[in-house]
Amino acid sequence: MRLLRVGAPGAEKPAALDAQGGIRDLSALVPDLTPEWLSPQRLRALAAIDLEQLPLVDAEVRIGVPVAGIRQFIGIALNYRKHAEESGQALPAEPIVFTKAITALSGPNDDIVMPPGSEHSDWEIELGVIIGSTARSVTQQDALRHVAGYCIGNDLSERHWQNHRNGQLYKGKSFDTFGPIGPWLVTADEVPDPQALDLELRLNGAVTQSSNTSDMIFPVAFIVSYLSQFMTLLPGDVIVTGTPGGVGIGLTPPRFLKHGDVLQLAIAGLGTQTQHVIAKELA
Amino acid sequence: MRLLRVGAPGAEKPAALDAQGGIRDLSALVPDLTPEWLSPQRLRALAAIDLEQLPLVDAEVRIGVPVAGIRQFIGIALNYRKHAEESGQALPAEPIVFTKAITALSGPNDDIVMPPGSEHSDWEIELGVIIGSTARSVTQQDALRHVAGYCIGNDLSERHWQNHRNGQLYKGKSFDTFGPIGPWLVTADEVPDPQALDLELRLNGAVTQSSNTSDMIFPVAFIVSYLSQFMTLLPGDVIVTGTPGGVGIGLTPPRFLKHGDVLQLAIAGLGTQTQHVIAKELA
Repeated sequence: MRLLRVGAPGAEKPAALDAQGGIRDLSALVPDLTPEWLSPQRLRALAAIDLEQLPLVDAEVRIGVPVAGIRQFIGIALNYRKHAEESGQALPAEPIVFTKAITALSGPNDDIVMPPGSEHSDWEIELGVIIGSTARSVTQQDALRHVAGYCIGNDLSERHWQNHRNGQLYKGKSFDTFGPIGPWLVTADEVPDPQALDLELRLNGAVTQSSNTSDMIFPVAFIVSYLSQFMTLLPGDVIVTGTPGGVGIGLTPPRFLKHGDVLQLAIAGLGTQTQHVIAKELA
Repeated sequence: MRLLRVGAPGAEKPAALDAQGGIRDLSALVPDLTPEWLSPQRLRALAAIDLEQLPLVDAEVRIGVPVAGIRQFIGIALNYRKHAEESGQALPAEPIVFTKAITALSGPNDDIVMPPGSEHSDWEIELGVIIGSTARSVTQQDALRHVAGYCIGNDLSERHWQNHRNGQLYKGKSFDTFGPIGPWLVTADEVPDPQALDLELRLNGAVTQSSNTSDMIFPVAFIVSYLSQFMTLLPGDVIVTGTPGGVGIGLTPPRFLKHGDVLQLAIAGLGTQTQHVIAKELA
């Protein structure tokens, strides 16, 4: 299943893609795609719906964040061998965990509005993992049972704020619009191996990131198990699992986002995102 | 006003303290103390209630987290001159921002359950700030208008996880029960100067932290304004604003929490907390 939410910001309705890729309105059956709808039981119930019987939504509709009321937005840094190398850093011995403000979440195709005066805003395509059931101290073997599904995430990062404004990545990762996720949540049953997905990011049409989740240092099952030793993961929590090589700060010379730039992100089987970059002072 | 939530975990009811310190049940008027009840308008409406007319609650009732549905839990590190000195670190040029998992939130007198095998769990009494209205890029002058009130916070921290498990404080700050806040939210009108509050923490009866919020490097108004440049603060968000000297890792020799320890925290005008420390393997 491909679950999504469509409509104006703050007024999204739940929907699902049918077999032809048409958007079907779920709102007569589901009030909204809140975290409790991500449990294995609820997802099975949703899968029983004959989508062809539900109203089609205009394909041009805005797409929002695929889950309403997300409570925790967690990131893993330096989780691709190539990205760790381009950052000039040793491979981490265990995952580097950070968080992003939940207020940074935005729709997959919404504009990215840079912070005023920002000169170091950067892109990061990542595999997003969406938790389906509470996970506390789970083993690697059990971890994927707690995953409802996957999506694309763009872990936008202000590098100066992140690296030179006194510690902790959170500061550079949390600006409004710095967390596009979607376009839809692809349920885990349709992603047989999350460690075998091609991902690609284009800046103004040119491929700048191109990799496969097989290059991840810590795979999804390890990450979910690991996090659950330190904290409790809740349904709806989103984990962005690190980015491969090709981010702006790693280029020679570095290249950061500018007003008018267009980012296109794709992960095999998870759809695409397209974002326009806005500097408000130039808009 | 002193607003609180009482009852079993997950089944708390809203309440307020009357002039004699009795707990009055608000549940006939207020479904729960959710973030939208913290707006200036709603707080004014709550202040119009004649509490003496409402039912008294048994004074021995369990007290929960004072706000339901808290979405962001933010901390400031090294924000007291004395604590920065005992940590052997230079005074920060700007605030060090980290987050705690919202699943770490717990009632002010709930047991602290240490992570399995933890040998470096530590206490940190802090002034907690609870946001009342959305704050995005606000000035220091306007910042306190976005504060609904104050509470005690204990920013429990596993020092080994925080310092030696590969970066980012979040990892050591997010275990379940590592974020007691309360006992109540004291509305901002009753705290004329948040930078003039005595705070004290006792370990097994002996004073180990004793300071005043006047020793804070970055005051509350600065912190709220500063954070709002990086992210959007939402109603109900909790900011713990740093701890003074006297944490376990700063003692000679260091002293960390053990099964059976009792912590008592007090901030002038904000009430007290008492927590029993449990190591599950010893309980």
